[in-house]
Amino acid sequence: MMDYNRNAHDIYRQSFAIIRAETDLSAIPEDLQDLAVRMIHACGMTDIVQDLAFTPGSGAAGRKTLAEGTPVLCDSRMVAEGITRARLPADNPILCTLNDPQVPELAARLGTTRAAAALELWRPHLDGAVVAIGNAPTALFRLLELLDEGAPKPALILGFPVGFVGAVESKEALIADSRGVPFVALRGRRGGSAMAAAAVNALGRDHP
Amino acid sequence: MMDYNRNAHDIYRQSFAIIRAETDLSAIPEDLQDLAVRMIHACGMTDIVQDLAFTPGSGAAGRKTLAEGTPVLCDSRMVAEGITRARLPADNPILCTLNDPQVPELAARLGTTRAAAALELWRPHLDGAVVAIGNAPTALFRLLELLDEGAPKPALILGFPVGFVGAVESKEALIADSRGVPFVALRGRRGGSAMAAAAVNALGRDHP
Repeated sequence: MMDYNRNAHDIYRQSFAIIRAETDLSAIPEDLQDLAVRMIHACGMTDIVQDLAFTPGSGAAGRKTLAEGTPVLCDSRMVAEGITRARLPADNPILCTLNDPQVPELAARLGTTRAAAALELWRPHLDGAVVAIGNAPTALFRLLELLDEGAPKPALILGFPVGFVGAVESKEALIADSRGVPFVALRGRRGGSAMAAAAVNALGRDHP
Repeated sequence: MMDYNRNAHDIYRQSFAIIRAETDLSAIPEDLQDLAVRMIHACGMTDIVQDLAFTPGSGAAGRKTLAEGTPVLCDSRMVAEGITRARLPADNPILCTLNDPQVPELAARLGTTRAAAALELWRPHLDGAVVAIGNAPTALFRLLELLDEGAPKPALILGFPVGFVGAVESKEALIADSRGVPFVALRGRRGGSAMAAAAVNALGRDHP
């Protein structure tokens, strides 16, 4: 047998202790510190903290709406799978419409990506929801367009699309004008489904 | 309407072109260059290339075994969800045993994490498989133990556990002695399910 830590609780506790010891969280408001720590835990990089952008009170807004049972809307199946059901406080629905059979036809008709077209199916669920975007820049761009068109407002936007085309631009568009919606985002090319899921998990209850 | 690229194929093509223009791939063998590019695409960081460790021929070994229809074994649901089915050349099974109902009891009996205990259920599928570990260091440690105990050998190990406790150590153990199995791994704390899934996708066929 090899020598390594096999205790899940212990591994979590030790991981979070290392992150807090190595990371300067002084610029992060109290209600987002857990979120920052869990995002760092998900990606292995303490320096993401300097690229975090957010509105004051966004952590509290996310916790409040989740406690009321509102859904979590995800742009990818990976984000949805990364959310720990047991942490959600009110058996909140987790919705990902990307693989809905209507989406390929919608994408063709609207002349956009499947990731963006999938948001058409979010409309009845947007009001007060937590939106977690961890993959597609086009999904975040489309969300901003929906809000400009008068769609109901989510309670919180977690904006973590990743990559080389549109990720920076879509997040900067959110940061410049979030259409009055509280948000957390990561500036730059970095992001991803693990960070988005970790951010949702941080807004749930303390289990595990 | 906002001004952004809505064409998925175009976004892919442009992303890969930017990555190839910005990344020095000269140290990466031909059969792993697509894999490196797709991993960079998944995380938004060109500098991971300097932390890639691999055995010569591991890319070719992965492609060969997938063409023969062998399964992909994943340590987390996020990795399984990140694999693009249409890219797998032989309708290969994608297995993740983490949520199998036997696993909590197995973990308690073996005194280890659920992620490590889930590998007990891999035994009948290991021979010639592609193993994709994108989350749990304990899963990679346990895989090495299984090989030491004489379990059948996979054709390729993709070792990308992430985080602060055991990630570095488990990957260095793999790199130091992969028990004769071809591998690709990322040194350091970085890793994750998106990178692991991207590495599998790179070994499939060219769609999309």
